Amino acid sequence: MTEISQQQLDEIYAFAVQLGKDAGQMLMDAARRRMQGNGATTSVDYVEKENSVDLVTKTDNDVEAFIHNAVSKKYPDHKFIGEETYSAGASRDYLVDAAPTWIVDPLDGTVNFTHLFPMFCVSIAFAIDGVPVIGVINAPFLHQTFSSCRGKGAWLNETQRLPLIQNPVPALPANAPSGCTFACEWGKDRRDTPEGNMVRKIDSFMNMAAERKGRGGKGGMVHGVRSLGSATMDLAYTAMGSIDIWWEGGCWEWDVAAGIAILEEAGGLITTANPPADFETADIPPVKLGSRLYLAIRPAGDTPDETARQSQGRVVREVWKRVQELSYSRPGA
Amino acid sequence: MTEISQQQLDEIYAFAVQLGKDAGQMLMDAARRRMQGNGATTSVDYVEKENSVDLVTKTDNDVEAFIHNAVSKKYPDHKFIGEETYSAGASRDYLVDAAPTWIVDPLDGTVNFTHLFPMFCVSIAFAIDGVPVIGVINAPFLHQTFSSCRGKGAWLNETQRLPLIQNPVPALPANAPSGCTFACEWGKDRRDTPEGNMVRKIDSFMNMAAERKGRGGKGGMVHGVRSLGSATMDLAYTAMGSIDIWWEGGCWEWDVAAGIAILEEAGGLITTANPPADFETADIPPVKLGSRLYLAIRPAGDTPDETARQSQGRVVREVWKRVQELSYSRPGA
Repeated sequence: MTEISQQQLDEIYAFAVQLGKDAGQMLMDAARRRMQGNGATTSVDYVEKENSVDLVTKTDNDVEAFIHNAVSKKYPDHKFIGEETYSAGASRDYLVDAAPTWIVDPLDGTVNFTHLFPMFCVSIAFAIDGVPVIGVINAPFLHQTFSSCRGKGAWLNETQRLPLIQNPVPALPANAPSGCTFACEWGKDRRDTPEGNMVRKIDSFMNMAAERKGRGGKGGMVHGVRSLGSATMDLAYTAMGSIDIWWEGGCWEWDVAAGIAILEEAGGLITTANPPADFETADIPPVKLGSRLYLAIRPAGDTPDETARQSQGRVVREVWKRVQELSYSRPGA
Repeated sequence: MTEISQQQLDEIYAFAVQLGKDAGQMLMDAARRRMQGNGATTSVDYVEKENSVDLVTKTDNDVEAFIHNAVSKKYPDHKFIGEETYSAGASRDYLVDAAPTWIVDPLDGTVNFTHLFPMFCVSIAFAIDGVPVIGVINAPFLHQTFSSCRGKGAWLNETQRLPLIQNPVPALPANAPSGCTFACEWGKDRRDTPEGNMVRKIDSFMNMAAERKGRGGKGGMVHGVRSLGSATMDLAYTAMGSIDIWWEGGCWEWDVAAGIAILEEAGGLITTANPPADFETADIPPVKLGSRLYLAIRPAGDTPDETARQSQGRVVREVWKRVQELSYSRPGA
């Protein structure tokens, strides 16, 4: 176990929050420069990666360099994993180990950013022993900064405790997934084949949405289906309690590390997207940060019949009952 | 034609913007009261209408009464149509005629509001001769107020002209719907039958999303699929240019009237969701406010090869090619 004192952790937290504010300002400055016009005829300059929905903008690189530089100067002994440096490197292995590590996505919701759709943000996590213990997410277009440090609570704009409703925290619906808001993303894998993730995802979404008697009894009649185009924002909104269930495959540790820290500190649960064979009775495993498969349930209140954790487990099983296995590979995770 | 002078219209616009601010404040006050806790065990008090996803809260009624009262006092000769008064009445007819008319949704995104998911807003439109000429939308959780008056431009927070990118306004992608952000909603009709709207919608969404060679050649490979749970916010974001295409059936005139005013003033196009038989050559009809069927395209820039309007028409046909006919009825519209 890495030894970091509470005082050191407090200092790292304050530093991370300020980093998030500064990096968010850089994102918003870049957005404003585009609004003011620069003669570009269609969209921001970008380089296509795998296909037209996987973009990397100059802004990603600039913001990651800014964060990397600030961290290296202040904490030269800490490890740093950022989306852009990872993508530029040769290895596709999972690189998070026990060392004190910063896990950063300089711009989550890149497609949103290129369209100036407001759901984009910077995501900064600090992990010890492979577990994110500090998370900062700043969505500057929305004036929303989310932050947490282990033992200190999770916060919106440093003043509003998460989840938003506290006295008491609302219980999860007895007939979940009915009554629940369900967040999910269509993703970049758009193959039109039964083994493709898009087809598996949409089949699962339809089970969650359909009337209870529909879909061969798998209908979940959720309260609403939402897609924001940002895994990080999905997790932040789950920590708020605004999203009850988030189910997703395909994103990476920098997309979720800060969100996991904030969600868990707020009292939420996160586990794997893929249902185990014995999903009705299996233990609910803790999330594997690099697994690319995530299922999050919002913070919940106890009831006379159920603890919060029991109710979250119940909702996890109700989701597992309705979703297909997704196929995303990850060496070393 | 109803005679309203430019001076009168300016005065009505200023009044509508102030109404939007005040009503948005009421929504946010109600949200804050819930955050501060009131002993409720699960959620805000609400009365179920058709099913568990069709809610009407006390907040809707209070805010509509506030707006109705203010309008009646200031403009006793104007007609008023609000979601809650309409729903409480006996008629299901389309009630908008040539008279100067306020068309109001006190709380759009009611499901979002009950979960404190930030995409909720008040929507206020003023129509003459059946056409919305003033629109005000206030989403207080997001600090976003959208407004427009015929001939005066469309605005975010009264200072940022819409669309967000102006110099020049970006052209629509040449290979649209690829490169486009596509907004769509799952809606309340969750019947699991081929003639049900959910099944027709999801089939259409999948055509828009799949790889180009997929779905029997109908694959559209859109840049991203987004669902916000609010028709009003979808339209406002299309006016911003953040959403390229919004396709929807099932909502009502109070959900879209202000958004249509703002979108059209920003330079966007809005027509019907349902493809005509000869969709490749048919004239693109102007939107029918009460039709419950909408297809909106964002404001666009001209190119050497195409006017903005030609490119919007091209994108409309690319959508019509890929979507199923939706079935929503409306007497008198």
